[in-house]
Amino acid sequence: MIRGRITGRVWSSKHIETLPGGALLEVEADGGATFIAFDPLGCDIGETVLVTQGSVAAAYFTKNKSPIDALIIGSIDEDG
Amino acid sequence: MIRGRITGRVWSSKHIETLPGGALLEVEADGGATFIAFDPLGCDIGETVLVTQGSVAAAYFTKNKSPIDALIIGSIDEDG
Amino acid sequence: MIRGRITGRVWSSKHIETLPGGALLEVEADGGATFIAFDPLGCDIGETVLVTQGSVAAAYFTKNKSPIDALIIGSIDEDG
Amino acid sequence: MIRGRITGRVWSSKHIETLPGGALLEVEADGGATFIAFDPLGCDIGETVLVTQGSVAAAYFTKNKSPIDALIIGSIDEDG
Amino acid sequence: MIRGRITGRVWSSKHIETLPGGALLEVEADGGATFIAFDPLGCDIGETVLVTQGSVAAAYFTKNKSPIDALIIGSIDEDG
Repeated sequence: MIRGRITGRVWSSKHIETLPGGALLEVEADGGATFIAFDPLGCDIGETVLVTQGSVAAAYFTKNKSPIDALIIGSIDEDG
Repeated sequence: MIRGRITGRVWSSKHIETLPGGALLEVEADGGATFIAFDPLGCDIGETVLVTQGSVAAAYFTKNKSPIDALIIGSIDEDG
Repeated sequence: MIRGRITGRVWSSKHIETLPGGALLEVEADGGATFIAFDPLGCDIGETVLVTQGSVAAAYFTKNKSPIDALIIGSIDEDG
Repeated sequence: MIRGRITGRVWSSKHIETLPGGALLEVEADGGATFIAFDPLGCDIGETVLVTQGSVAAAYFTKNKSPIDALIIGSIDEDG
Repeated sequence: MIRGRITGRVWSSKHIETLPGGALLEVEADGGATFIAFDPLGCDIGETVLVTQGSVAAAYFTKNKSPIDALIIGSIDEDG
C-alpha cells in the first residue's frame, strides 16, 4: 500500500454512472506523486492515510462494479 | 485515480477487433507523463479529468471483453 | 494505454509453453522507457502504436491462458 | 517481486472493516521508494524481504476479500 | 513485458507456504531498476530474459494459488 497525506478534494458533476457517491480526495504519496483516491472513512485534509490500488481497490465495492482504482483503507495513527 | 488534462486525440484505423468505438484521448497526468485513455463522456481538449487504470478500466465494458486499460470516469469540476 | 514507437523485434527460442506464437516487438514509450509487446497486427519498425498492459492484455487471448502483459491494440494514424 | 528492507511499522486504528489484523510494515524498496506491506511472517525491522504486489497479494487471503495490495512473501537469506 | 538481464539469485528459507519451489532470480530491467522474478526455465546469470508481471505471472501456476507477480517467460536469443 502507499502511505500518503490528504491534500485536497475534487468534485465531478459529469461522471460515468458507476462512480460511487462519496469523497474523492487528493493524496500526496511518499515521494511526492499526487493521485485521487476514494475515501470511505471520512478523512480530513492533512490526515496521513493508507491507500490500496488497482483491482484490489475496486473489489471493496461489492454491490456494483466500481471504477475505483485507489481506495483509502485506513488512517495512520500519529504515534504509529 | 490519476488526474490529468486532455491534450489531444488519436485515431487508429488499424486496430484489433475488440477495440470499442469511441474517443481515444491523450491525457497529460499530474507530473507530466502522457498516456491515452478511452472517453465515454464526450470531453474536450483542455478539460481536467479523472482516469482509472488497469483491469478496473476494462471492467466498464460489460458486453464484450475490452482491451482498454485507461478510462476517463469523470470530469473534474473547475471549482473542485 | 501507452503510446509508443516500435524500435525492434526480439526472438525467444527458449520460452514457456504458453507463450503464443507471434511477433514480440520492442516499443519505446512516450517518455523513453522501453518494453516488449505482443503484436497481433503485423506492425513495422517505426510505426506508432497503442499498447494496453496487465491482465487486460492477457485477456485478448481467449483460447489459452497467455503470459502476455503488453499487447499492441492499434496503430496510430499519422494524421491523428 | 520487489526486494526491500523493513524500516518501520505503522498502526491504523481507523480503518475499513476488511483490513486483516496483522502487522503493516514500512518497506524501503531497492531504488529508495517506500511503501507499506502486510507481514504474515513476523519479520523484524532491518530484515530484507520479498514483496508481491497487486491482486496477487490480495489473493493470499482466502477467507475474506482483503484490501491488501502488498504482501511480504519471504525473508531473503543473508547469504542468498 | 520487461526485458532484463539476470544479475543474481536469492534464497528464502522463511516464506509463506504458497511460494512455489524454484529459482528466484534478480533481474536488472532496461532502465536499471532491479526486481526478483520466478524462473521456470533454468536461466543463468548474465542471460537476457523476458519477464511478465502482475496477475498474468501468477496465472502461470495452475495447480495452486501462487504469490508470484514476476515470471520469466522466455530467454531472448542473442541475435534477436
